[in-house]
Amino acid sequence: MSKNNVSLSGKSILGLEYFNADEIQLVLETAKEMKNIINRDIKKVPTLRGKSIVNLFYEPSTRTRSSFELAGKYLGADVINITAGTSSIVKGESLRDTLLTVEAMGVDAIVMRHKSEGAAEYAHQVVKPAIINAGDGAHAHPSQGLLNLFTIAQHKKTLKGLKVAILGDILHSRVARSDIWGMRKMGMEVHLAGPKTLLPRFLTTEKGLFVHDRIEEAIEAADVINVLRIQLERQKSGLFPSPREYARIFGLNRERLAGAKDDVLVLHPGPMNKGLEISPDVAYSDHSAIQEQVQNGVAVRMALLTLVLMGGKNLEINA
Amino acid sequence: MSKNNVSLSGKSILGLEYFNADEIQLVLETAKEMKNIINRDIKKVPTLRGKSIVNLFYEPSTRTRSSFELAGKYLGADVINITAGTSSIVKGESLRDTLLTVEAMGVDAIVMRHKSEGAAEYAHQVVKPAIINAGDGAHAHPSQGLLNLFTIAQHKKTLKGLKVAILGDILHSRVARSDIWGMRKMGMEVHLAGPKTLLPRFLTTEKGLFVHDRIEEAIEAADVINVLRIQLERQKSGLFPSPREYARIFGLNRERLAGAKDDVLVLHPGPMNKGLEISPDVAYSDHSAIQEQVQNGVAVRMALLTLVLMGGKNLEINA
Amino acid sequence: MSKNNVSLSGKSILGLEYFNADEIQLVLETAKEMKNIINRDIKKVPTLRGKSIVNLFYEPSTRTRSSFELAGKYLGADVINITAGTSSIVKGESLRDTLLTVEAMGVDAIVMRHKSEGAAEYAHQVVKPAIINAGDGAHAHPSQGLLNLFTIAQHKKTLKGLKVAILGDILHSRVARSDIWGMRKMGMEVHLAGPKTLLPRFLTTEKGLFVHDRIEEAIEAADVINVLRIQLERQKSGLFPSPREYARIFGLNRERLAGAKDDVLVLHPGPMNKGLEISPDVAYSDHSAIQEQVQNGVAVRMALLTLVLMGGKNLEINA
Repeated sequence: MSKNNVSLSGKSILGLEYFNADEIQLVLETAKEMKNIINRDIKKVPTLRGKSIVNLFYEPSTRTRSSFELAGKYLGADVINITAGTSSIVKGESLRDTLLTVEAMGVDAIVMRHKSEGAAEYAHQVVKPAIINAGDGAHAHPSQGLLNLFTIAQHKKTLKGLKVAILGDILHSRVARSDIWGMRKMGMEVHLAGPKTLLPRFLTTEKGLFVHDRIEEAIEAADVINVLRIQLERQKSGLFPSPREYARIFGLNRERLAGAKDDVLVLHPGPMNKGLEISPDVAYSDHSAIQEQVQNGVAVRMALLTLVLMGGKNLEINA
Repeated sequence: MSKNNVSLSGKSILGLEYFNADEIQLVLETAKEMKNIINRDIKKVPTLRGKSIVNLFYEPSTRTRSSFELAGKYLGADVINITAGTSSIVKGESLRDTLLTVEAMGVDAIVMRHKSEGAAEYAHQVVKPAIINAGDGAHAHPSQGLLNLFTIAQHKKTLKGLKVAILGDILHSRVARSDIWGMRKMGMEVHLAGPKTLLPRFLTTEKGLFVHDRIEEAIEAADVINVLRIQLERQKSGLFPSPREYARIFGLNRERLAGAKDDVLVLHPGPMNKGLEISPDVAYSDHSAIQEQVQNGVAVRMALLTLVLMGGKNLEINA
Repeated sequence: MSKNNVSLSGKSILGLEYFNADEIQLVLETAKEMKNIINRDIKKVPTLRGKSIVNLFYEPSTRTRSSFELAGKYLGADVINITAGTSSIVKGESLRDTLLTVEAMGVDAIVMRHKSEGAAEYAHQVVKPAIINAGDGAHAHPSQGLLNLFTIAQHKKTLKGLKVAILGDILHSRVARSDIWGMRKMGMEVHLAGPKTLLPRFLTTEKGLFVHDRIEEAIEAADVINVLRIQLERQKSGLFPSPREYARIFGLNRERLAGAKDDVLVLHPGPMNKGLEISPDVAYSDHSAIQEQVQNGVAVRMALLTLVLMGGKNLEINA
């Protein structure tokens, strides 16, 4: 239940480490209202009419860009896309100057994807419009972490006390990092498993966080399994077992899933490498909420944009 | 004249082989209303407000993409573009998963261009939103076929009984295929001519369909001549006479046009290779409706989007 | 003060050589109103609702394209982008045919960027919609010239009699050309300085226009200094001193700026090559209006679109 003094108004969304449980709860409750709007026959609402949002993407990401673009448009905002063909958006211009330029054009929020950790935080220091971090290197992807929490909340009675297994390349995954922060804030237990070289060692002493050598161990008590995408393009040669080996030892398939709880929920941030980290029969099974995550992503982004730009004004949020 | 029980509501537009004459007639009548809107001082109507359309283009096509984008926006819809840089839109993701993702984002219609025949039909089987085929390989380009019929209908009293010559590379042309289906459904006679290697032989026994060796024969009785674009990029080496030879033997020029009816109408789907399949003096002559086709394309696409998404509700259509 | 008979209604904006002082004044006054809109909490106005604008960019320019896109959207217009990946927008299609196609789609204005001098003027001759020249080779970039005038007007009491120094590669700069036309029309004195090989010699006899060998001379009496971007990509090898040499001899740095008036205003069209034509301490100093120029650019483009498409109707312009 959201408290009256909780607000994200005027804030930037940089990472879930800066959220407290009440703020996360506020996003989840607002997203519930937003999901109703998406499923209406007529989706358009005037909530953000007269507000402008720039998608500033230094790395291409069709899924995330489209999700934010639709979220903004469903709310009546103007959305424009600035996407890098290659590495820099304006040849020879520094990130700072590009941000100052975008700010000067009068925009209200900047949704930013960048290959470097800390880029969103830097942007937040440089300009006044709200920054929504849509992925900064391996650091964070907070809207993905929130949509995972929202999806879990829609299936399970409460978040507190739930056990979540996160499988795969934890080391390079901003999704895993955002999950861990968000889930720990909500009192969930997180179990990590994957190839040893792709696991962060330093985490093993954290409270509520467990690292397993074999994914079977991580899965057995899990209420939710989040299978990460193997980012083949980010692996250095030699670091990684062959795709075939990976699928055999670490892939989530029907046999492994049989060792989990009967009502286990399976998540994947997409796009899937089917047959690698997840088998098709699991991806399209009744346990899978992978499709739902996409719709919930639009709802969560609508919630974030509304809370940041309108402070929840004119929104009726019933817990 | 449209009958009350004719409707395209909730249907996908995959190819004109699935249309009957009444349905085609409904599109043409609706397009007439839409053309009036385009020519108003203030074009925006609220017909599709709250509806969202995704242009999902696996092959670049500035003309068709812009035409659908403007059609959607004139009607008040939200339109977003997802365009492939290269071959796949999301690296490593299957067409099915991309379609499921776009569906999950809550969109109402997917306008799709793909290099493979049958891609639109596959999409229609996989997801619920209406699919508008904007070209699938050499199979079909139904909105192009309909805009050709609409353009002809605007110039000639009736479609039934008209003779149309289609010139060029029939074999690789989705425009030709859509033309043939649509024109035959409307009771028109179709005469094909072009290089022998670019003509489909199997068609010669079809009713109302004639194949000619020399384009002069196809032209002489024609009420309408549709000159196809030579897709130089699709020709395998050796299949094709040199461009110079092609222009000499098969190009529509002033001399050849003199052998046609006095009021013959010349169409071309654009973009033109001027001096190759059509000479500039023909392209810009009084016989040419090539410019008009572009505007009619927007009108026909507005009609399709409205009929599919609104079922003609709130539309006054007077035959 | 604008006179009642001054109007840009239905005109194309090709270059400031075609403007008179009253027309420039009308744009500046309208831009003042528009700047108020940008700074409102709710920016959207319905002025251009039902109007459609195409950004037709044959050269990429994220800044200018975004500025026009936001300007159109703040005014309620529909804006679509047609941007060249490489050299041609539609493979094999002539500029004329692309323009005719865009016109036929029913658009009201075409904002055009092209690498060739005279392209916008050609477009104006070929099609009916208003053409807004967003840069044609080294010829002109009128909205940039106008936003510079607007920025100066916001800081100085009057334009007439002001002295402006323009520094850098005058020869290849459409900004310099547009500045010179606009500033001379407004009765300002223009002082050019830069490497000799990058200065146009023929200008030396023009009234109110002075060419200097050393930038110190150009700066000393200046009320405004406009530092041009060095377009490294346009320099032929051998023409140019090394970047290091350039910065030493021609760069605007703190020491050089000390030789100017106390209240001198520094402009730069962006993106900046910091450390080359301008030093960071000058770029971010109190003299700099570089950020402001970006916002003023949106305001001036809103003014141009409104004046061209609406003729100032329903606008209250108070001098």
